[in-house]
Amino acid sequence: MGGTELEGLARRVRAASREVARASSSVRDDALRAAADLLVNDPSGVLEANRADVARAEREGLGSAALDRLGLTGERVTQMAEGLRAVAALPDPVGEVVDGWVRPNGLRVERVRVPLGVVGVIYENRPNVTSDAAGLCVKAGNAAFLRGSSSARTSNMAVVAVLRRALAKVGLPEDAIALVEDTSHETAVAFMRLRGLVDCLVPRGGKALIASLLEHATVPYVLDGDGNCHVYVDAAADLDMAESIVVNAKTQRPGVCNAAETLLVHADVAPGLLARLRTSLSEVELVADERARVHLPGAAAATEQDFATEFLAMKLAVGVVDDLGGAIDHIARFGSGHSEAIVTRDLVAADRFVREVDAAAVLVNASTRFVDGGELGLGAEVGISTQKLHARGPMGPRELTCMKWVVRGEGHVRR
Amino acid sequence: MGGTELEGLARRVRAASREVARASSSVRDDALRAAADLLVNDPSGVLEANRADVARAEREGLGSAALDRLGLTGERVTQMAEGLRAVAALPDPVGEVVDGWVRPNGLRVERVRVPLGVVGVIYENRPNVTSDAAGLCVKAGNAAFLRGSSSARTSNMAVVAVLRRALAKVGLPEDAIALVEDTSHETAVAFMRLRGLVDCLVPRGGKALIASLLEHATVPYVLDGDGNCHVYVDAAADLDMAESIVVNAKTQRPGVCNAAETLLVHADVAPGLLARLRTSLSEVELVADERARVHLPGAAAATEQDFATEFLAMKLAVGVVDDLGGAIDHIARFGSGHSEAIVTRDLVAADRFVREVDAAAVLVNASTRFVDGGELGLGAEVGISTQKLHARGPMGPRELTCMKWVVRGEGHVRR
Repeated sequence: MGGTELEGLARRVRAASREVARASSSVRDDALRAAADLLVNDPSGVLEANRADVARAEREGLGSAALDRLGLTGERVTQMAEGLRAVAALPDPVGEVVDGWVRPNGLRVERVRVPLGVVGVIYENRPNVTSDAAGLCVKAGNAAFLRGSSSARTSNMAVVAVLRRALAKVGLPEDAIALVEDTSHETAVAFMRLRGLVDCLVPRGGKALIASLLEHATVPYVLDGDGNCHVYVDAAADLDMAESIVVNAKTQRPGVCNAAETLLVHADVAPGLLARLRTSLSEVELVADERARVHLPGAAAATEQDFATEFLAMKLAVGVVDDLGGAIDHIARFGSGHSEAIVTRDLVAADRFVREVDAAAVLVNASTRFVDGGELGLGAEVGISTQKLHARGPMGPRELTCMKWVVRGEGHVRR
Repeated sequence: MGGTELEGLARRVRAASREVARASSSVRDDALRAAADLLVNDPSGVLEANRADVARAEREGLGSAALDRLGLTGERVTQMAEGLRAVAALPDPVGEVVDGWVRPNGLRVERVRVPLGVVGVIYENRPNVTSDAAGLCVKAGNAAFLRGSSSARTSNMAVVAVLRRALAKVGLPEDAIALVEDTSHETAVAFMRLRGLVDCLVPRGGKALIASLLEHATVPYVLDGDGNCHVYVDAAADLDMAESIVVNAKTQRPGVCNAAETLLVHADVAPGLLARLRTSLSEVELVADERARVHLPGAAAATEQDFATEFLAMKLAVGVVDDLGGAIDHIARFGSGHSEAIVTRDLVAADRFVREVDAAAVLVNASTRFVDGGELGLGAEVGISTQKLHARGPMGPRELTCMKWVVRGEGHVRR
């Protein structure tokens, strides 16, 4: 795909975005429900396309985890449809009057929530991201400009074809959901540089994608970053509660960004807590600093690198600190600004942790695993931002909108 | 300045930012008031430093407008102090609970406004930006990491020395306001790439700075963009009101980003309005499309380029459109997303314009000149953002903050 061809497609998507922005929420929601119906009533086209992708991936020797992410079944297609219906049922973020006031001269000022316009999404090989991302974009009044992976290309084309049919059914332009079919790296870079045509880019991928984005992007973007999350167990913690939170944060789903990677324990409770965890974390590989190893015989010595690593596995780094300040300093040094938890019954300690720890989410007496759009009540999630600008933490449909100032006068001129 | 030296300074600023974030708003405001007192009570150091900059700039043949921006007088230093006091008097954005709710499982969720951390500002040769920007950063609980121009280097160093003395007076770390004294392009580029050390970069400069930022920056930034602003006079406009708004928007201060650059007139009222404007805009150079020129004898033909240009001068492009849709399309094509105004008594037209025009600010029956932090009630302004992410339109202290999720449980774990 040449740069001109990509730009031409982007211009069509942009024109379509104006029509989506004008559409009422009932029309946008109808589009999502129509897409869900099409997927459920006739999944065969999507499943057939997916079989071709899977067969090619098998020939090319893709790993089993990646193959699992790539593969669709009738049930998974139904889940995609259910996801679209769930998003359709959420409240519309567009049109919310965020705040407003009247100036002394009588000018009436409002800030109103409006769609971003064209939202770009670059993502890897799960075909369900195609419908999830497109659904959230249209929900919030945006056009979705998608660029998936080469391994899922045929599946993505089939899903997008269904979504576009649904748009047409409700009278919205098909180009409000468009897929860049060229999956080359060059086209991905060109995509990141469509300044003026793409209003916001949401990358959903690994470190290589993020690095490429930081280097090349000229369009605005929202990063979904790493989660090197900590649980700090304070001197005043209830140890039963601490044990259950640590076990949950580490083991309930270790491969996700809101799982805990490091446990910090106040020296006063280290003997008691670590003795319990030796048993309850017996399935977890522990690496520990010198003071923690006293209570964790058999744990390997943790390196600086261990404390800086998002294991995404049944592995936990453990450190003992002298006090709350030590925990806060450790988190400031090693944390990735995702989710940080304290377990304590001490109100002063809880308040200080909440105030001084710099992260998208801080938790008191709760597992880091709750930092998720669904769990926190956003209904659906575009991703979890670890950046500070625009969106921080779980991003729902609202984070795919922006604000517009509306100023009303009666012939006001400035003196 | 080597990259290591810059990074070392950035780390000190970052450490200081944690202390500013912890400080109460009364301490932060005291710092700004102390700086104001120091500037007013002994402006001699700043004025002397500024004389050295001005003398060098004169030797180097700097233009008179630039010399005027660079030069300080006792009165201008007093204005800098008054600016700091005005910012100190604004409400503190930090700590605001933006929203919150309780989840069905009892988890209590809040989103709380917190400082960004380290705010970088790259700016050109007005030394007053040094105190304005630093004041707004500290107001919002941030450290200010400043990089001014070479022409104002000595002045900036003197102003920063005063600001740092004020920080020390109230017990805040001096490194919470720091100036990069090396004004080379290489260091500016290195500054834009301090990812992880600078939380938000606010460029205040021209097109070359923005282009460099888009190419090189890895830190998050908020752009203060061009204003190619339109006034559209609808068929249902009051022509007296339309005339006064057009004249105000174009001529009250033509060199700023919220001045109007293009007038669009509905064909029905073009003869009447343009006949009036021939007189009331007699000081303004008019370039017009074919239909407008019928009523503006003597106006040159407007090119496509004219409609795309932010003149920042007593020059106005004029076009006649068939209807509101024509105006909206013209603005979608040529507007820069800054401020767009409609003059009309027709409610349907006003509502459609407000809804369909994609800009930071849309105005009904008011001059574009009102799109300004002071005029809209923000108290002070960091700049006017034409981007959609994070901040759009005038940015006050609140736009120098971000959100943090605070989640409180009683031992909650995820199932």
